[in-house]
Amino acid sequence: MYSVGDKNKYYTLYGEIRADILRGKLKEGDRLPSKRALAAELGVSVITVQLAYDQLLAEGYIRSKERSGYFVEAVTDYSAAKPASRVLQKESADAPQAEKTDATQPQIDLTRGSAPVNLFPFSVWARLMRGVLADCGEHLLERVPCNGDKGLRTAIASELYRNRGIDCDPENIVIGGGAEHLYGVIVQLLGRDNVFAVENPGYGRISSTYALNGAKWVPIPVKSRGMDINKLQNSSATVAHVSPAHQFPTGAVMPVSERTRMIEWAADGGKIIIEDDYDSEFRLTGKPLQSMFSLCPERVIYMNTFSKSLAPSMRMGYMVLPPRLAQKYKSVFKSSASIVPLFEQKTLAAMLDGGHFERHLSRLKNHYREVRRLLLAALANAEGCEVADTGSGLHVLARFSAAGGDENIKKEAERRGVKLKCLTDYFLSPISGMENYAVINYSSLTAEMLKKTDN
Amino acid sequence: MYSVGDKNKYYTLYGEIRADILRGKLKEGDRLPSKRALAAELGVSVITVQLAYDQLLAEGYIRSKERSGYFVEAVTDYSAAKPASRVLQKESADAPQAEKTDATQPQIDLTRGSAPVNLFPFSVWARLMRGVLADCGEHLLERVPCNGDKGLRTAIASELYRNRGIDCDPENIVIGGGAEHLYGVIVQLLGRDNVFAVENPGYGRISSTYALNGAKWVPIPVKSRGMDINKLQNSSATVAHVSPAHQFPTGAVMPVSERTRMIEWAADGGKIIIEDDYDSEFRLTGKPLQSMFSLCPERVIYMNTFSKSLAPSMRMGYMVLPPRLAQKYKSVFKSSASIVPLFEQKTLAAMLDGGHFERHLSRLKNHYREVRRLLLAALANAEGCEVADTGSGLHVLARFSAAGGDENIKKEAERRGVKLKCLTDYFLSPISGMENYAVINYSSLTAEMLKKTDN
Repeated sequence: MYSVGDKNKYYTLYGEIRADILRGKLKEGDRLPSKRALAAELGVSVITVQLAYDQLLAEGYIRSKERSGYFVEAVTDYSAAKPASRVLQKESADAPQAEKTDATQPQIDLTRGSAPVNLFPFSVWARLMRGVLADCGEHLLERVPCNGDKGLRTAIASELYRNRGIDCDPENIVIGGGAEHLYGVIVQLLGRDNVFAVENPGYGRISSTYALNGAKWVPIPVKSRGMDINKLQNSSATVAHVSPAHQFPTGAVMPVSERTRMIEWAADGGKIIIEDDYDSEFRLTGKPLQSMFSLCPERVIYMNTFSKSLAPSMRMGYMVLPPRLAQKYKSVFKSSASIVPLFEQKTLAAMLDGGHFERHLSRLKNHYREVRRLLLAALANAEGCEVADTGSGLHVLARFSAAGGDENIKKEAERRGVKLKCLTDYFLSPISGMENYAVINYSSLTAEMLKKTDN
Repeated sequence: MYSVGDKNKYYTLYGEIRADILRGKLKEGDRLPSKRALAAELGVSVITVQLAYDQLLAEGYIRSKERSGYFVEAVTDYSAAKPASRVLQKESADAPQAEKTDATQPQIDLTRGSAPVNLFPFSVWARLMRGVLADCGEHLLERVPCNGDKGLRTAIASELYRNRGIDCDPENIVIGGGAEHLYGVIVQLLGRDNVFAVENPGYGRISSTYALNGAKWVPIPVKSRGMDINKLQNSSATVAHVSPAHQFPTGAVMPVSERTRMIEWAADGGKIIIEDDYDSEFRLTGKPLQSMFSLCPERVIYMNTFSKSLAPSMRMGYMVLPPRLAQKYKSVFKSSASIVPLFEQKTLAAMLDGGHFERHLSRLKNHYREVRRLLLAALANAEGCEVADTGSGLHVLARFSAAGGDENIKKEAERRGVKLKCLTDYFLSPISGMENYAVINYSSLTAEMLKKTDN
């Protein structure tokens, strides 16, 4: 049935099954072989099959039915388990206590979105910088083309292929000075006649950056399966800015059926989807979900930054443009130089090429797994708290249903030395039923902090 | 009468006389003491007085009358000698030959606006980088405030005070990623309802960047005294983007009377002037002209970049905002980080603070003086060529009146291995009487190149 190589066995298997579903070889309702049977047939371990099925499950290609096995989903009529949605839907009423800290302890900031600075491999970075300085010398003074240094673009393309399954030409990549800078470039590229649909609740900085750049935007509600496609279809939007892998702050993961519907929306009338993959590197179990870009490279702009994985002062991000837009970019910006200094671009390229970035990411993920374990344990002990956890990204939602309102949740937390925001703080316009959720962004936490607060 | 300190004697004297003119203590038509008399009275050399008078002359505060001496100008009715305008007004008809190169020689590019890379003090820069890396360590990873690193802003403020006579609070300075990035920030700050007046002919990149940022712009003709204020007054413009110190490509220097008129235009109705001081560091004789910002810090945004004085890959520029706009900037961009990496900002600050930048500039200026001398000599030998030279900036205009049109001038030059543009290539909309002027940008030339072509 399936042949599985030695390396990344489960990922290969996952890819082959997914291909069969997409090609229609496996149809809606088809039952997959049992894990044990498939493992025996392929000569791989049951764990390998389990991991492949888990990935297909997480992406919404299959569903699991207790005691019956795994069944193929209808990609256009998806209704599988939605881990992120659980917390958005259920109701409960318990006590409002969360963290067990007291006011004398150091402030824990659950609103920050960056890794602790001491986890950055500074000595490696400094060594690479010295190397670049010595190797490139005066070439560092030369003008950088508008789409960035070719070496860095090539390194990013391999990284995307290796870790994200994205196959793209380095010529279609544009290096920019962080996410906000790229949003502005996209407005310049697509034009201000467009209306940008943004996720609500969401990062306020996305809509405000569009507004600052003179573009119109509309908030579209996020439900358990990501941006509400019906609402999107009924809006005036011509561009949809989404984070399908792990929406901030709801944590929603967009299943493949919804992705397909959104791509259909885009294909009808030459619209564009911006896939903001801001924290997909931090999926802590399994591989990241397949990108929307891979599903439709003609309609999707893929973008990501290094500010979460490296450091907030590294203002570097990139986007992969559909070929037609990449051509347009080069013609519009041909007389502009890249805004990112060549020095930083060369150093990052050396970090990617030398495998340092991958090692750093893997260390960071181990760190976050431990932080998340301690955090979830602490929250499990907290009375009246229910947690949603998708395994993606660097934040979880915790519901305190008897908290008596979001202001109370924040006040209680502050009394215990914890700074946090609620789901409603990320509203672009109000939506009902989202009260009493604390957004717990653990990206700046350390195990030590949590162990202290646990006592 | 005037007391003159030991340091920068002529500049102090210049400042004191200028203050008397502005305060009305010296009135229109008043005769200044002879150089010899004033020198004797103050106990300084005649050269010192000469330099002070030259500066006042260049800025249009006084005029010289042959055999009679120096007289105070009416600041609001200025009509002194206009070196840059000479060539724009007179007519003549000679032969079209310019450079004495032949097609086998290496290409000389007179369209590029950057210094030869080998003049950059790379070893100093590399040493400072290593120092910053060692000194700042992991602090380099921290988020930089939206207006840039305080150390760099402070260093720029002293530099501006020392070399440009500009007195400003570092809190009103914003560091950006080069000129184009700052133009975009200005649009975001002032709003897209504004109409930006840009100089015609001028850098196409200014108007195209405004257009890309969704702002409307109108071309206003540049005459011998800079942007035509009458035309500006009759336009719909609410913001004027000018380079009064040395307009590109006409070379026009805006005399103080015109500056005053433009400031009056701005003050009437809350308009804004953007003073783009892109190459004022390269005034090769005397000090740079007093800035418009100093005349009216409430209405003028002063901006400059380091791409001419350092290297084109150093995408760093800055602007000094009027206090009210600086406040607005901080409130609009408070949640954004600076787009320039802290590492580059710290290195540049070290370069400024350590006096390395000043030494580099002074070496660059010596280099350009020699290049200019050789260039002017070569052009003087060329038949039918007349040169306008204001002593400012890094380009001159050469008129070839019998060339038979701009396309011929460029073709002839190309045949000799020289790439150049004409004044008409910088038109945003056509203006008559500007044909047959070659724009000779000598910023990328070296003395060696010119000596070769001279043979």
